[in-house]
Amino acid sequence: MDYTPLFSNAVQRSKASAIRELLKVIAQPEIISFAGGLPAADLFPVEEIADIMQRVVREHPEASLQYGATEGIAEFKKELIGLLKEVEGISATPEQILVVSASQQALDMTARTFVNPGDSIITASPTYLGALQAFHAAGADILGAQSDENGVLPEDVEKNLELLKKQNKPCKFIYLVPDFQNPTGTTIPESRRLKLLELAQKYGTFILEDSPYRQVRFEGTAPRTFYALDEGRGNVITMFTFSKVFVPGFRLGFVVGPEKVIRKYVILKQAMDLCTSSILQLATAEYLRSGKLAEHIKDLVVSYREKRDLMLRTLKEVMPEGITWTRPEGGLFLWLTLPKHMDAMALLPKAVEHKVAYVAGVDFYPAGNVKNDIRLNFSYATKAQIVEGLKRLAQTIKENL
Amino acid sequence: MDYTPLFSNAVQRSKASAIRELLKVIAQPEIISFAGGLPAADLFPVEEIADIMQRVVREHPEASLQYGATEGIAEFKKELIGLLKEVEGISATPEQILVVSASQQALDMTARTFVNPGDSIITASPTYLGALQAFHAAGADILGAQSDENGVLPEDVEKNLELLKKQNKPCKFIYLVPDFQNPTGTTIPESRRLKLLELAQKYGTFILEDSPYRQVRFEGTAPRTFYALDEGRGNVITMFTFSKVFVPGFRLGFVVGPEKVIRKYVILKQAMDLCTSSILQLATAEYLRSGKLAEHIKDLVVSYREKRDLMLRTLKEVMPEGITWTRPEGGLFLWLTLPKHMDAMALLPKAVEHKVAYVAGVDFYPAGNVKNDIRLNFSYATKAQIVEGLKRLAQTIKENL
Repeated sequence: MDYTPLFSNAVQRSKASAIRELLKVIAQPEIISFAGGLPAADLFPVEEIADIMQRVVREHPEASLQYGATEGIAEFKKELIGLLKEVEGISATPEQILVVSASQQALDMTARTFVNPGDSIITASPTYLGALQAFHAAGADILGAQSDENGVLPEDVEKNLELLKKQNKPCKFIYLVPDFQNPTGTTIPESRRLKLLELAQKYGTFILEDSPYRQVRFEGTAPRTFYALDEGRGNVITMFTFSKVFVPGFRLGFVVGPEKVIRKYVILKQAMDLCTSSILQLATAEYLRSGKLAEHIKDLVVSYREKRDLMLRTLKEVMPEGITWTRPEGGLFLWLTLPKHMDAMALLPKAVEHKVAYVAGVDFYPAGNVKNDIRLNFSYATKAQIVEGLKRLAQTIKENL
Repeated sequence: MDYTPLFSNAVQRSKASAIRELLKVIAQPEIISFAGGLPAADLFPVEEIADIMQRVVREHPEASLQYGATEGIAEFKKELIGLLKEVEGISATPEQILVVSASQQALDMTARTFVNPGDSIITASPTYLGALQAFHAAGADILGAQSDENGVLPEDVEKNLELLKKQNKPCKFIYLVPDFQNPTGTTIPESRRLKLLELAQKYGTFILEDSPYRQVRFEGTAPRTFYALDEGRGNVITMFTFSKVFVPGFRLGFVVGPEKVIRKYVILKQAMDLCTSSILQLATAEYLRSGKLAEHIKDLVVSYREKRDLMLRTLKEVMPEGITWTRPEGGLFLWLTLPKHMDAMALLPKAVEHKVAYVAGVDFYPAGNVKNDIRLNFSYATKAQIVEGLKRLAQTIKENL
């Protein structure tokens, strides 16, 4: 039978993620990949997790294997409240927190909670591709605000807010990845965060703060989160995930926001998946209680810093003139800019011929209008692969300059 | 700040699940609850799961803790294909299967893939509440087709299909829980299934077959699934979950359908949550490989059959005249009908005073137009609780006849 006349507009709007499609193509072992956003598997706390899993199941069989509350398991939320207080100085009540099946679900949920098809939102340009996918699925009209080495420009955000105001359209939210942004690796300084918060207040909107990499800081001092800087005025909804600092395979994250909004999210989550896995919430609660997360993040920081440093050194050695890149203070990515006339997407098959892969920058731009960037991940490849892979990439670029 | 002007239409359409709200109220231990749809926790294969979890993590640390493919982990899908073949005689390719975070996600995904706000679908009336929630969230106009003791009436489905045809509107799909339906416990016989399939073909739509309880059959012969009866014509998308036959805490299920539709689901799932937990897929694959699922289901059947029998016997003993109920051949629920003048929702607070709880039937009706039904779950309560709880319920009913 022909399903075509039955598909919804949302399906017609959606397109497959370039990255996830790419990951399948470049799975051959001889290709060195800087394409994914995967944490290094060799750092996973395997023994701790194996031990905790069997312990949680044996000690709490019903709680770990039965359905859980849609809001998240109370015991896990208690640990999250402690973590927020300790690490970010944020005070939150259980009613202000929703456990989600990792950040992507929170992005989808936020889009569905606020966006009707045709509604406008503002994001940095470029920004996280998976967020653009979730926002597109809801039919959002995405206005990209320009960025520099300190992240999104408040004046360009304001220009877009003014534009919408003149059209009498609300800005449903401003989506930002403030720390070591995916894809550019840039961090928004505190002064700029305060300006952006003022704008959110002035224009009656909120900032959706996405912080998957924030704890992975190599140097310098972390600016406070938007959530903390907002001081309870309610203009921020913030998202954390355990995918980058613990393990992605658990699909666990949480959202913190005004109780009234979290309540709406809970009702939507009932329709979306009833609840997030009980056993994985309890296991992560146990891991948090053990106090080992901070230690584990220290190991991550040491390893990823070495890899970032190696990537920066090697880029300097191998790249021809006219190529620039960012210098992230943390996270998993840096952003390489080719000369304006080059098209990173067109270059990719040639890179794959040279057995190296990356993600072309174009899909990170809401308007898809900039073609000459490359996102490089430095967390997943080994050090030897970083050196060899960058040599291959430089060779590819030189041949196509 | 005031979020009200920012909320989407979807949020305005959504309402909290009566059941999940209720579950919180009736959590007090002295209340005997027939309200939830929970499997019996004392039957969970705790030791097997504890052992498998630690083994999977130690033996496959990267595969179990890293991100997985959006489609589902190949190794798990291989087991699912074997299971489908063995248990249902269904042949499926990996491309026809999508792993989901349990059935509720498949319901949400199906609604989003096919329904634009205002589009029409047909369901049985009454039908599973969580499905109605997911369909409402997508803005579906839900036409309920009448049912009898053999499930939905094909002639009433056809009446609705004709109605839509006259309005020149497609029926996006027909949603059915064919086996031991939630909430009524009824099963659609094969002859009726064939008629419904003919209707789907005739009117260019498909049947969304939801089979969470199908394996939990106490007696008689199972009709073939809609999917098997369709013989590859593509007019059926079918959903299975491990929540009722294994453990709900894993949040694992799968959808089987035409490759073209599954492909759309995969793209949507990328935006929804990237992928379902790797570790839980691998652990369930391992459990399936061990061959213990069939044995476990046999234990479930023995236990739930005893509980159903006890519930049927006790109902006969304690209920006043004028009260009727269904006699399900399997599953978790039976459906009690009060005299027409009684309102089961209004009765509920009085039942709770008598320390017994149930779900009022009204929310299972798409039109919310029938008030005198009660859904009773017989899987979760102990045998002693079933006897005592039904006495309390009968007492409540007698006092309010």
